Amino acid sequence: MIRFVTGNEGKVHEAREYLDESVEQVDYDYTEIQGELKDIALYGSRETFAETPGDGPVLVDDTGLFVEALSGFPGPYSAFVEDTLGIERVWEIAQREENRRATFRTVLAYYDGETAETFEGSVRGRIVAPRGDDGFGYDPIFAHDGRTFAEMSTAEKNAISHRGRALAKFADWLAERNE
Amino acid sequence: MIRFVTGNEGKVHEAREYLDESVEQVDYDYTEIQGELKDIALYGSRETFAETPGDGPVLVDDTGLFVEALSGFPGPYSAFVEDTLGIERVWEIAQREENRRATFRTVLAYYDGETAETFEGSVRGRIVAPRGDDGFGYDPIFAHDGRTFAEMSTAEKNAISHRGRALAKFADWLAERNE
Repeated sequence: MIRFVTGNEGKVHEAREYLDESVEQVDYDYTEIQGELKDIALYGSRETFAETPGDGPVLVDDTGLFVEALSGFPGPYSAFVEDTLGIERVWEIAQREENRRATFRTVLAYYDGETAETFEGSVRGRIVAPRGDDGFGYDPIFAHDGRTFAEMSTAEKNAISHRGRALAKFADWLAERNE
Repeated sequence: MIRFVTGNEGKVHEAREYLDESVEQVDYDYTEIQGELKDIALYGSRETFAETPGDGPVLVDDTGLFVEALSGFPGPYSAFVEDTLGIERVWEIAQREENRRATFRTVLAYYDGETAETFEGSVRGRIVAPRGDDGFGYDPIFAHDGRTFAEMSTAEKNAISHRGRALAKFADWLAERNE
């Protein structure tokens, strides 16, 4: 049994599609540190393991959008930047750059009290003018294969998503480990 | 004796000008969490107190530039934004706003194992096109009374600075407490 630390039930459903083991949702508000996605997720997994009852392994995810021409901005602080600048302004900044390549990254951190591992999934795309009504966050300005994430259904998005790719890697690792 | 947790010797000198007690520099790389300046500094002061030898009270500072029209961006992540977007782009974004007011804030957190207190100092100004060769960080785009911080000497800047104002509050509190 894996304890997925998230307030988002949708993520738990997505994890269940990849993993053979059962997945339980743990709603714990762990400390988010400043740093790279990997460091943030690892720190959160260790803290949650130490501070919550139960001794099953925990899984923590952290996600960010990294714009190449902006040295990886907004990266780990994507949520803060969305709340302050807003995605329209991120588009306006990127619009002035010739290189509009960007990558959505998710890092999953697993911790069971002894073993700590991280798994990264990413999707490459481009920053475009906002389009589409679905999704959330940066979805309207992130285009992959000609369509923005906000123009895709949840199922379509999950099929190519950074989180899905990280979950697939984690599932492989877990399956090998349990053999 | 106060242990000021910073890699910057200049800050220690500045603190000595305000405090009657002796100030010792502690170079400890505490965990910076995501959150408000106050939370970041408090967390750092508690961690440093717990993790470093010695039992004197510790002082941790955190500083950010808050642009009013951008909901407080870049705020606690000013260093990250400087390293990725750069201050030229912050000016370009602010330039499109009618309201160019901004505030430099410093929060000092004091922790002695029992008492935790924070002290905030701030300076109001405006975001302007980069000017001046002195200072560092956002100094060239932050103007106070017509001049940017990068057009002032360190002494002039310290005389009106956010950190100085926070240090003055802290000094008052400490003096009353020691009476």
